[in-house]
Amino acid sequence: MGTAQDTPLVFSGDTFTATYRLRASDANEAADIARDICVEQTVEFPADLITRRDILDGIIGRTTRIEPDDETHFEVEIAYAAETTGKDFVQFLNVLFGNSGLKPGIRLVDFTLPETMKDIARGPRFGRAGIRDLVDPLNAAHPLLATALKPMGLSNETLARYASSYAEGGIDIIKDDHGLVDQRFTRFEDRVRRAADAVQEANARSSKHCLYFPNITGPADQIVERAHFAKQVGAGGLMAAPGLTGFDVMRQIAADDDIALPVLSHPAFLGPIMLGQDCGMSHGALLGTLNRAAGADIAVFPSFGGRFSFSREECQDIVDGLTKETGHKTALPAPAGGMTVDRIKTLRDFYGTNAVFLIGGDLHRQGSNLAQACRDFRARIENEG
Amino acid sequence: MGTAQDTPLVFSGDTFTATYRLRASDANEAADIARDICVEQTVEFPADLITRRDILDGIIGRTTRIEPDDETHFEVEIAYAAETTGKDFVQFLNVLFGNSGLKPGIRLVDFTLPETMKDIARGPRFGRAGIRDLVDPLNAAHPLLATALKPMGLSNETLARYASSYAEGGIDIIKDDHGLVDQRFTRFEDRVRRAADAVQEANARSSKHCLYFPNITGPADQIVERAHFAKQVGAGGLMAAPGLTGFDVMRQIAADDDIALPVLSHPAFLGPIMLGQDCGMSHGALLGTLNRAAGADIAVFPSFGGRFSFSREECQDIVDGLTKETGHKTALPAPAGGMTVDRIKTLRDFYGTNAVFLIGGDLHRQGSNLAQACRDFRARIENEG
Repeated sequence: MGTAQDTPLVFSGDTFTATYRLRASDANEAADIARDICVEQTVEFPADLITRRDILDGIIGRTTRIEPDDETHFEVEIAYAAETTGKDFVQFLNVLFGNSGLKPGIRLVDFTLPETMKDIARGPRFGRAGIRDLVDPLNAAHPLLATALKPMGLSNETLARYASSYAEGGIDIIKDDHGLVDQRFTRFEDRVRRAADAVQEANARSSKHCLYFPNITGPADQIVERAHFAKQVGAGGLMAAPGLTGFDVMRQIAADDDIALPVLSHPAFLGPIMLGQDCGMSHGALLGTLNRAAGADIAVFPSFGGRFSFSREECQDIVDGLTKETGHKTALPAPAGGMTVDRIKTLRDFYGTNAVFLIGGDLHRQGSNLAQACRDFRARIENEG
Repeated sequence: MGTAQDTPLVFSGDTFTATYRLRASDANEAADIARDICVEQTVEFPADLITRRDILDGIIGRTTRIEPDDETHFEVEIAYAAETTGKDFVQFLNVLFGNSGLKPGIRLVDFTLPETMKDIARGPRFGRAGIRDLVDPLNAAHPLLATALKPMGLSNETLARYASSYAEGGIDIIKDDHGLVDQRFTRFEDRVRRAADAVQEANARSSKHCLYFPNITGPADQIVERAHFAKQVGAGGLMAAPGLTGFDVMRQIAADDDIALPVLSHPAFLGPIMLGQDCGMSHGALLGTLNRAAGADIAVFPSFGGRFSFSREECQDIVDGLTKETGHKTALPAPAGGMTVDRIKTLRDFYGTNAVFLIGGDLHRQGSNLAQACRDFRARIENEG
């Protein structure tokens, strides 16, 4: 290994860190596992066969902290050289967890970005303040309300009519259901045009500022095109599903100055990454910090108490990832997944005003006047403050 | 719900099925969970609020089988209408497991494709027989041998020199390490050109048929371009990492008739989907059936007994997913992850001849003559047969 003719590598000193929660019986075992991760995530080559000091010292990760968490777990922080990822966000994810994610007993719970990644992974373009300015220019300090166009199977005409009622009723953000893509019964371009028009017309009537977020998820070669189309016909934002498409295309769309729309991230297909014990990524690292780094202004997740199983602590972890100091703008949590009008007070108490409450089917349970159901929902949530 | 003006939906009868392993105490509970999945994965809307029969009967999934697995688990099969996904493989994955993957107690263990997806998700272009024809035209019935250009940090000149030695030593497939993308010390185009040239020259000298698979993983907007570049400069195949980039771009590249190269799938970032208990996807469904449906001719996975933790049963599950009758060509398993020369017999006995044995660092442990180390490895593995 090594070879005299290679010019020695020069490193900038710019690094990024990953924090892993390890299952280990003592600090020595944790240090051994950490050392394995340092090698696995970089050279993936027996370190004893590497003679080049520049690779050993510069490419291989370095354990910078080992702390006990509980009796059987340790938290370790590893620093990686920015040079391992270049300016490639996909490779950044690969160095964070590409191979070690295949091993049990290792959970990625936090990370930072290198300086070189700052102009690649710029975080939310709008962020909490920017979204609030768009939908609530008077800054009323109320939680934002969102709903989805659904169910799959309705015609675009009917979906647009719903959109009109929702906007009229004071919903701030209307997104496509994540199951609406470009099917025979709901062609993408027709749907987006109709719903965007319906929302703009309702806004004009009501002097409100509702935003429509079409789902741009689709075949890999059509996503960016759909984002541009949506922008062109007046969508107010875009919905991405990074678990289905990879995080990088969301990052790319969020960073595209010609698109320049708010981005809402849907958690489809991301569940398994969080659900295992002592493996995968923490809820906060995945749906919080990573979503935000990859440009999500709003992150949808299934809240505690609904149809899903996330605990209060896991939901708080996501909120923390979206809001803690990282150098990126603060993003908005959008608790969802079986929100009902009855649960408003509990959710309002927990998430406060800086959240997007996403309610779906339950709006249709409140009677046949959808706009009135939205108004009632808004009144309930504002009065619970 | 419903609205008189919508034209009723018409369904072709074409369906696809998903098989989930559920944690449930009895068949009634399993049926209830299955019913929830049928709704969650399609309309994601309270079924009692839907009055339209076409949506209730046609869009919502249908449980077609419930069978006990062990005392606390049931296997259920659900059929979904092809119309829910259209011709969109991303949406197909979304219907299979987008939301239900966020719930514990549900593991996706198998699936089939609808007829409408057959020209979208064509499976391996070459498959086992095609790859064997390319690298071993005499059909010697030996296992295939693969290695990786690594470690990260070496210059492209050195990596190309290694490639030359590996090809000369009789390695069938040389892939980039999955950590080599387009960093300052290993620019993509330069690396691919040099390594492809080195392998072609070695093939010309030896009359062998070694194939070089560069790693085309990278920023979302550069992957397809990299695939075309690699083809242009004589790469023999392509390595994708669907966990990092999404499965659809691999599918797209595999199905591209202008590229028409064998595809090797690397499992980076896919680990967490499999590692949890009673959640996520089974090893065979993810690294076997899904990899294959999305066009992988060769699927790399960490074998039992190496640095990783996959069991023999889990490895067999992957092999089954790659080889069972699905209508797609059979794909090749590539066990990896700490293969050593010492373990050849065990692995040879388990995987037989229809496998690609991927050995990395251990080749460098056998002395400084890399080509000789490859020849020794080949002799060992052929003689263990």
